[in-house]
Amino acid sequence: MAEICLLGTGGMLPLKDRFLTSLYVEQNGKALLIDCGEGTQVAMGMHGLKMSRVEALLITHDHADHITGLPGLLLSIGNCSRTEPLDIYLPESCVNAVKSLMSVCGYLPYEVVLHTLSYSEGESFKIERIDPMLTISTLPLQHSTKCIGYSLEFYRKPVFDPQKAKALNIPVQLWKKLHAGESVTLEDGTVITQEQVTGEQRAPLKITYTTDTRPLDTIVGFAENADLFICEGMYGDKEKKQSMEEKGHMLMQDACELAKRANAKRLWLTHYSPAEKEPALFAEELKAIFPEVEVSVDGMKLTL
Amino acid sequence: MAEICLLGTGGMLPLKDRFLTSLYVEQNGKALLIDCGEGTQVAMGMHGLKMSRVEALLITHDHADHITGLPGLLLSIGNCSRTEPLDIYLPESCVNAVKSLMSVCGYLPYEVVLHTLSYSEGESFKIERIDPMLTISTLPLQHSTKCIGYSLEFYRKPVFDPQKAKALNIPVQLWKKLHAGESVTLEDGTVITQEQVTGEQRAPLKITYTTDTRPLDTIVGFAENADLFICEGMYGDKEKKQSMEEKGHMLMQDACELAKRANAKRLWLTHYSPAEKEPALFAEELKAIFPEVEVSVDGMKLTL
Repeated sequence: MAEICLLGTGGMLPLKDRFLTSLYVEQNGKALLIDCGEGTQVAMGMHGLKMSRVEALLITHDHADHITGLPGLLLSIGNCSRTEPLDIYLPESCVNAVKSLMSVCGYLPYEVVLHTLSYSEGESFKIERIDPMLTISTLPLQHSTKCIGYSLEFYRKPVFDPQKAKALNIPVQLWKKLHAGESVTLEDGTVITQEQVTGEQRAPLKITYTTDTRPLDTIVGFAENADLFICEGMYGDKEKKQSMEEKGHMLMQDACELAKRANAKRLWLTHYSPAEKEPALFAEELKAIFPEVEVSVDGMKLTL
Repeated sequence: MAEICLLGTGGMLPLKDRFLTSLYVEQNGKALLIDCGEGTQVAMGMHGLKMSRVEALLITHDHADHITGLPGLLLSIGNCSRTEPLDIYLPESCVNAVKSLMSVCGYLPYEVVLHTLSYSEGESFKIERIDPMLTISTLPLQHSTKCIGYSLEFYRKPVFDPQKAKALNIPVQLWKKLHAGESVTLEDGTVITQEQVTGEQRAPLKITYTTDTRPLDTIVGFAENADLFICEGMYGDKEKKQSMEEKGHMLMQDACELAKRANAKRLWLTHYSPAEKEPALFAEELKAIFPEVEVSVDGMKLTL
């Protein structure tokens, strides 16, 4: 189970009612953020999220609207008495910018560990600090600077089958332990393992996040069957398609087409241009392409 | 005449309803900001202030809560098509931090000119870009890092005296020109200058801004007769006095004592600790020390 909050939906610059694009994902009280523009820590406060739960940050690219909230966030995490190291995963091309921002923090009571990612397809890693079973894979995007998309895959336990457990005469008080993955020994000495009492393995819970980028065929495979696909859509006005692609961005309609081709379960749009005052005006047109689209607003939450 | 807006009143970290301490001062459509923490540009938008009017920034010190809004602000000013240079005045000790922050901006369509200030008493300068008659003086404060206070003095024209103008037979349509400082020539060839039609020179309009600092005797002279004195007051709980001074801060009561000794016309408190949830609870006690104190809130405006 993952708790998700889209902290901001704005691109380029924060507006009074639209913070910069950032995603908060929490599992079992441990959270990660993807991107951290100016004001991300304020948005966390507005939506009742706790700084002390943040264990890791993933950075997409080095543009200011995705990273300038970093020093404030790191200092505020320090104010929560953190002493454990905190992980930042970022494209190699972001390291200088992130180090420059961190230089204004002064003393932090914990270590920040930078994990650099190459700009190659198919790279994946685990964030042990959050969940050893959480796998994160990356996709090189196409923007005006090197930018990375992330897919998070949370392991899901296979469904428990009470019929199988009953047939094996396993006392009910042992079911929870077994479902959690531990083996149990019955009174007669028989050892029972999880596989004996569960159904088929389930696909992991998948969240895919791609901004800033022009629409790419590779995003389709990357977001395939995602439970939640979060993708940029700068404008809804189709006349802007060419200029957006030239700038390494896409339209809301492009994001819907990608979600449809990827067979995503739902799509949240984000990273609207500050000039796009009412993205919701395009909702009907977008739902005609991909019915499960949300023209997201700041603070949208979901439990998956 | 100056338009003033206190963009934020928070110290250390921004809260959802309290942005970081920053002051906006505008004269004749040209503005300066003192300090620029995370979210300053959002606060400007919330209070209807235009990015395009900002001509200069004054920085007090290099702590993150006073400077991390800089890259976003500079980029947003760039988005307003600025091509004229922009001035930043800052203690020499801040240069590295400000350059680090600026390094994440990438391209700006205008030049940023850094003017370094020493940490010595009695330094003063003019910001020609705003008003050649605006004089700014500095005061070294005592904080955990080198920090500077600023006093802004806006020249005020002497009051026009219609009796003098009438006695000299000056046509009414020339009065405005004369009051603005230009000389005029009458039909008979007589040249009249401003001094002949005005009263005594008036004291400049003075705004003094001191945060972060422990209370200092030197602040009294620096804020003397200020039309508006803006000063930090981290807490209202007098038990915190010693710990505050050790950290280079002061209480709201200290600020009131300074305002009283300085004979300031009014005092606005700012830079409250995030732990000080309701500064207004101390209003009565503070007014007993200095009746013209305002326990400021974000967005307070004044025309002087």
